[in-house]
Amino acid sequence: MKETPGSKTKSQVWVVENSKIRSRSDYLATEEPLEIRLIEPKQTVAITMRTPGADFDLAIGFLYSEGIIHRQEDVEKIAYCIDPDLDGEQRYNVINVSLRKGLRPNLAPLERHFFTTSACGVCGKASIDSIKIRDCPMISTERTVTPEIIYSLPDKLRSAQGIFTVTGGLHASALFDFQGQLIKLREDVGRHNALDKLIGSAFLADELPLNEYIVMVSGRSSFEILQKCIAAGVSIVCAVSAPSSLAVAVAKEFGITLIGFLRGQKFNIYSGFERISLKS
Amino acid sequence: MKETPGSKTKSQVWVVENSKIRSRSDYLATEEPLEIRLIEPKQTVAITMRTPGADFDLAIGFLYSEGIIHRQEDVEKIAYCIDPDLDGEQRYNVINVSLRKGLRPNLAPLERHFFTTSACGVCGKASIDSIKIRDCPMISTERTVTPEIIYSLPDKLRSAQGIFTVTGGLHASALFDFQGQLIKLREDVGRHNALDKLIGSAFLADELPLNEYIVMVSGRSSFEILQKCIAAGVSIVCAVSAPSSLAVAVAKEFGITLIGFLRGQKFNIYSGFERISLKS
Repeated sequence: MKETPGSKTKSQVWVVENSKIRSRSDYLATEEPLEIRLIEPKQTVAITMRTPGADFDLAIGFLYSEGIIHRQEDVEKIAYCIDPDLDGEQRYNVINVSLRKGLRPNLAPLERHFFTTSACGVCGKASIDSIKIRDCPMISTERTVTPEIIYSLPDKLRSAQGIFTVTGGLHASALFDFQGQLIKLREDVGRHNALDKLIGSAFLADELPLNEYIVMVSGRSSFEILQKCIAAGVSIVCAVSAPSSLAVAVAKEFGITLIGFLRGQKFNIYSGFERISLKS
Repeated sequence: MKETPGSKTKSQVWVVENSKIRSRSDYLATEEPLEIRLIEPKQTVAITMRTPGADFDLAIGFLYSEGIIHRQEDVEKIAYCIDPDLDGEQRYNVINVSLRKGLRPNLAPLERHFFTTSACGVCGKASIDSIKIRDCPMISTERTVTPEIIYSLPDKLRSAQGIFTVTGGLHASALFDFQGQLIKLREDVGRHNALDKLIGSAFLADELPLNEYIVMVSGRSSFEILQKCIAAGVSIVCAVSAPSSLAVAVAKEFGITLIGFLRGQKFNIYSGFERISLKS
């Protein structure tokens, strides 16, 4: 039986520099599939390419972000599949989630991801509407943070990125409190997976909603990043790089403070600037 | 009726620098949903968040990468949906593709993306197998390139990234010949979409397979990036950043030369180093 796959994989690499070649061993970020299944109704709800590690966080964060589970009691059991027919290589790549008896999850929102037979209208506008339908409230907190705290986040995120340091190939999502203290960080080859892991971990620790927290992502911010943050009630979202137009639109709609291009002593605010306290 | 959405969107932004704030207008990369539908069988095959522009390339590249179409004759017509019931805001966000009469596409591979009811085994290994099932041959070309040509690609890619220059928020995929000449480039908020656009454009120009070409992507290389390149027959894949473990595994399996961390006068070769000609 295979061991739990590691988050990094050793590999031989040829380095070409100034037209000279040498060989050395290197570490790559591991990428393997993860299938997330519900037991009842018996259904595969996702197959995602992910970096092994924090797999239960990932499964739970995904189910929460998609509105399939809402609170801890909704989850009865999470376990790796031990089906003896399962190919040994895929051991630890399949997770079974048992929901609370009697819970009838609404799987319809998942269909927007793929393979629907719907007529027109199952697109962005509908997705935005579906967040409202899932009763996501406006994000509300009266608290503010100083620019100095925001400036400090990228360095803290980078120093906590254990696997990135070794492989140079991973996205990260981190949770900070309003004093700028790092609460937790998750890494993955997929941007969305890193955020699902972070939110799943908060779900399992009963820390949701995250109104009094800041989420920082290592890349850009997109519609789906914002969608997950809205579901988790995050009030301030920071990204190292640019937001998309739709990320800004939903941040405004749900009252999220959205920060981008956070580098050095500088950042851009795209929405909700009242949460950043500036000396007048 | 709404005009074709642009690839960039004007937005007001607050810039915080050294604890001072000022407002200015800025451009964001536009992100909107694109629904790709087949007319017969009547089926939505994808809803992807994309940057408008080269939408037909994107739809065709996606259908090709997924093995639904194989050659130009398979496509009878591509058009934006003009259903009068379609919400005005979603005009230009829905594409209808009519396949050649009698073509019975195999839609099963799509199911790996989402929402299957399968038992175990529909994961990475199965996906890798499904590439073989779709008769993707080993990539073969005897031709080689010099390190100097490889070094030159990032600057050429960056100078051709029109929308990135303005918004700072887009991925790019570019096609180069073995002399290092840029053939075409496509941009998108999504890494996979940029590559689908590039491959779709080559499909529509009847340029496939791309054995005698180099593809360069702006970010990292993952399983899905390699999967699309294998389908298109690309022999050399270069990325600015790191590959994942599975990207290296499939590159080796299909004989692709995989290059990463391509910066300045330096790069790493993870697979197929015989295509890089070094002075001995």
